[in-house]
Amino acid sequence: MNERELIERIRTQAGRPRGLVHGIGDDCAIYAPKAGEELLFTTDFLIEGVHFQQSTHTAADVGYKALARGLSDIAAMGGSPRFCLVSLAIPQTLRGRWIDEFYKGLLTLARTTGATLAGGDLAQSEKVFCDIVVCGSVKKGSALRRDTAKPKDAIYVSGALGGSSLGLSTGKGRAWKKHLRPQPRLKLGQALHKLRATACMDLSDGLSIDLQRLCAASRVSADLDGELPMFDGASIEQALHGGEDYELLFTAPANAPVPRSLAGVPLTRIGTIHRGNAGCVKIDEFELQPLGYDHFR
Amino acid sequence: MNERELIERIRTQAGRPRGLVHGIGDDCAIYAPKAGEELLFTTDFLIEGVHFQQSTHTAADVGYKALARGLSDIAAMGGSPRFCLVSLAIPQTLRGRWIDEFYKGLLTLARTTGATLAGGDLAQSEKVFCDIVVCGSVKKGSALRRDTAKPKDAIYVSGALGGSSLGLSTGKGRAWKKHLRPQPRLKLGQALHKLRATACMDLSDGLSIDLQRLCAASRVSADLDGELPMFDGASIEQALHGGEDYELLFTAPANAPVPRSLAGVPLTRIGTIHRGNAGCVKIDEFELQPLGYDHFR
Repeated sequence: MNERELIERIRTQAGRPRGLVHGIGDDCAIYAPKAGEELLFTTDFLIEGVHFQQSTHTAADVGYKALARGLSDIAAMGGSPRFCLVSLAIPQTLRGRWIDEFYKGLLTLARTTGATLAGGDLAQSEKVFCDIVVCGSVKKGSALRRDTAKPKDAIYVSGALGGSSLGLSTGKGRAWKKHLRPQPRLKLGQALHKLRATACMDLSDGLSIDLQRLCAASRVSADLDGELPMFDGASIEQALHGGEDYELLFTAPANAPVPRSLAGVPLTRIGTIHRGNAGCVKIDEFELQPLGYDHFR
Repeated sequence: MNERELIERIRTQAGRPRGLVHGIGDDCAIYAPKAGEELLFTTDFLIEGVHFQQSTHTAADVGYKALARGLSDIAAMGGSPRFCLVSLAIPQTLRGRWIDEFYKGLLTLARTTGATLAGGDLAQSEKVFCDIVVCGSVKKGSALRRDTAKPKDAIYVSGALGGSSLGLSTGKGRAWKKHLRPQPRLKLGQALHKLRATACMDLSDGLSIDLQRLCAASRVSADLDGELPMFDGASIEQALHGGEDYELLFTAPANAPVPRSLAGVPLTRIGTIHRGNAGCVKIDEFELQPLGYDHFR
């Protein structure tokens, strides 16, 4: 199978490019924006040996996770997915069936979330390198950002923490499934406006480092004065520093009507935003070190 | 330097995200479309050992070329660049200065073309992997495509062919510069409307394979009955099959007013589109084999 035949095969699997003027197969995909919409763009690597292993992840798992990571960023800003682009470099040994299964995993999630596959790039490499782009849409001026948290806001997280990290260490059970097939919190992100959320981001690298980033961007500090919602069996270290939970971390005014769950996901108040000392996160008067995942530490 | 400090450094170098609502540093970049515009999206890998070598390409060359490849796709559809996203994975040995030079090479080209750096991703890997996304803009319904060539159209190319391939083999002179620093034909692409161009694509993998792709997409055949504009010193094989010239290949009605040069680039009529036998390209009655670059042959 040469490159053109492979692209043709992917185009057939992807189906009609719903919502797009022009999809796979040309120099560019073409999107016609709707009146009053603003567009969100995120790009995320998924690299063999860094983000996944061939020995534990099927091709379908890799395809699913590549897209799920991007969708989680769209969820964090309250967006609705519009389309995605996928760049995939693979070793010569992984042809035919691996590629089919990769796109099957990706396209199943794409269909249920509205992220039409609109294009991408293909190449050969020694290890699997995937880079995904997702475009999402929000009503003009309504995107949730991470640099807009305010002093006295309450801090919340969705779901339970540490599950993905626990799963990675045990390789089994519900925790492993949480690691392998994270659920992007799209409906929750879209519903956060009603709660008057002031800032939001997704938990991709661990609460300690992600909350530090939110506080640094908003030039505020945080006090973790609430109880953390722990994933069943996870340690406190896994809940504080474990990456890839893909839950949402958000802030809202202290008197905002935040329910116990929203869009089917439990919400827990875990702390309070304070003035000053940008990026400092405290727990019981001690400064929490940002020990979450950092590619360049 | 950790990941946050590195992102902060890139954000400072990139400057204010002109034309964007929100740039580097959040889960997503935010773009507010203008009335009446359609958006073009392209994504391109630049991989060490496939598209470039550390021994012959400086970090600035790599940054420049990564963006130039994407801009060439925008040019091929007649678009004006709006912003770009850059995913970069690098070995631990290439820190600090290499990264600075990479972004310097990329940002210099970004500034002169309007492709504001709006975001991306960072990771570590054994070799350099770069994936670039470029967003361009066209007036609604005016994007040039490759699937719209018509029988009896004349076929044109811009510039001279085979230079990049010649440069790759000699490693010196004007040809090497053509390989190292290709000029995306943005102004030419934007001017092609006035010529009533019917179809267009960029020459990234070689005339033989790219013309075959244009013909296959348009369900037509082609006859190379004109003289090829040869890059000084290039062989006929380099002109027919050599990749990475990043010139434009386009079609226009036989009576269209195509000048000898446009936007400072010479234009040459090289052939004619014919009905039927989709994807077949002939030269002197012989079928031309698509020997240009194919990642999966």
